[in-house]
Amino acid sequence: MWRASVLTIFPEMFPGPLGVSLAGRALGQGAWGLETVDPRLHATDRHRSVDDTPAGGGPGMVMRVDVLARAVDAAAPEGDARPRLLMTPRGAPLTQARVRDLAAGEGVVLVCGRFEGVDDRLVAARGLEEVSVGDVVLSGGEIGALVLLDACVRLLPGVMGHPESGTEESFSAGLLEYPQYTRPQSFEGMEIPAILTSGDHAKVARWRREQAEAVTRARRPDLWAAHAAAHDRSATKKA
Amino acid sequence: MWRASVLTIFPEMFPGPLGVSLAGRALGQGAWGLETVDPRLHATDRHRSVDDTPAGGGPGMVMRVDVLARAVDAAAPEGDARPRLLMTPRGAPLTQARVRDLAAGEGVVLVCGRFEGVDDRLVAARGLEEVSVGDVVLSGGEIGALVLLDACVRLLPGVMGHPESGTEESFSAGLLEYPQYTRPQSFEGMEIPAILTSGDHAKVARWRREQAEAVTRARRPDLWAAHAAAHDRSATKKA
Repeated sequence: MWRASVLTIFPEMFPGPLGVSLAGRALGQGAWGLETVDPRLHATDRHRSVDDTPAGGGPGMVMRVDVLARAVDAAAPEGDARPRLLMTPRGAPLTQARVRDLAAGEGVVLVCGRFEGVDDRLVAARGLEEVSVGDVVLSGGEIGALVLLDACVRLLPGVMGHPESGTEESFSAGLLEYPQYTRPQSFEGMEIPAILTSGDHAKVARWRREQAEAVTRARRPDLWAAHAAAHDRSATKKA
Repeated sequence: MWRASVLTIFPEMFPGPLGVSLAGRALGQGAWGLETVDPRLHATDRHRSVDDTPAGGGPGMVMRVDVLARAVDAAAPEGDARPRLLMTPRGAPLTQARVRDLAAGEGVVLVCGRFEGVDDRLVAARGLEEVSVGDVVLSGGEIGALVLLDACVRLLPGVMGHPESGTEESFSAGLLEYPQYTRPQSFEGMEIPAILTSGDHAKVARWRREQAEAVTRARRPDLWAAHAAAHDRSATKKA
């Protein structure tokens, strides 16, 4: 079973939205597992402190390396080979390719920072991979952990209603997805593009491909450049 | 009051993690408001259908433009000037600058897609801005909405414990944040960098700046290039 352990001082945030819909049903059926570990239970002073003031000064509080290291050790004892990720805006941006790798493994251990962050020594001391879910600052790592878990869980065997859905969507071929339409045929004077109701499957496929390329080029020049480079490489290999 | 309206077929996912901690306290105190609007209540057939099969074929279901348009009209009647955002991997990546703009406004209307997405005509019909919270595919827009709301709410007046925290963090100056440390001084043989305990504030500030630049350059060449370009422009202006 794919197993997630989440280190958080707000265990009541989990499963939260992951207890509903496809992810929630899969959790109930044992298709994946979720446990939370509260670092407060691994604090040693009588106030159960998990944080202290930043060395060198500055606002806020920093999470203590000793307390978090004990919590990591409790969540992932020796021999637990699951990747350990620290959710932080300082991390490498999470990609769908990394999500696919993580979903294909045994699970994840996720450390959720709070306050001004986590003592940097924890990263080396417990072999953490620093991951960011986007270029925004959140009040803690918990909602980032929900993003990562939702993205992984929907790819687990048997979770998604339509297995093909995972292969024809944004980022799967390095492109954003083509636009979708459904009934009614006409809405406030706007029609479904005629080609989609033509019944010509080859034309529909070509149109969707062109649309996916056009929207990626227009909105995500970064993805488009990477896609074009990959395409050039594969063309060169074939030649 | 800053007001969020979320269109979702899973209203039970809200406030979820935003009902806890700083965001939850602020919600309870009326520093911000949250309502959900369930598109199912705006369906007109007896099955309360919100979706139908994709025009042109393909797996899954697409959310209907007519039902969602009625739900948008109910959430944001004429004269409601709040930005309307569609949470979708096809959108423009959310940035901290956009979050700051949204937090300074009156609130947001967030449309959460599900299944294979939303009929594309909705975007033009109701003036939606398509926004993505990262290059991963989620099972719906709901967790993306939680990301956006958490990022905005923590910037609202009176929500964050330390107002300075918002100005000295990742992305605020186009850089990732410097590493943080706190007690204990020594952990498994690793010490807090001596400069941070030197008491020399100017040296600490310079060291932190260098660290922020180094980590940005190493992990996020994209942010670093944008930062360097902005720096060049401001240097040119001064000259």
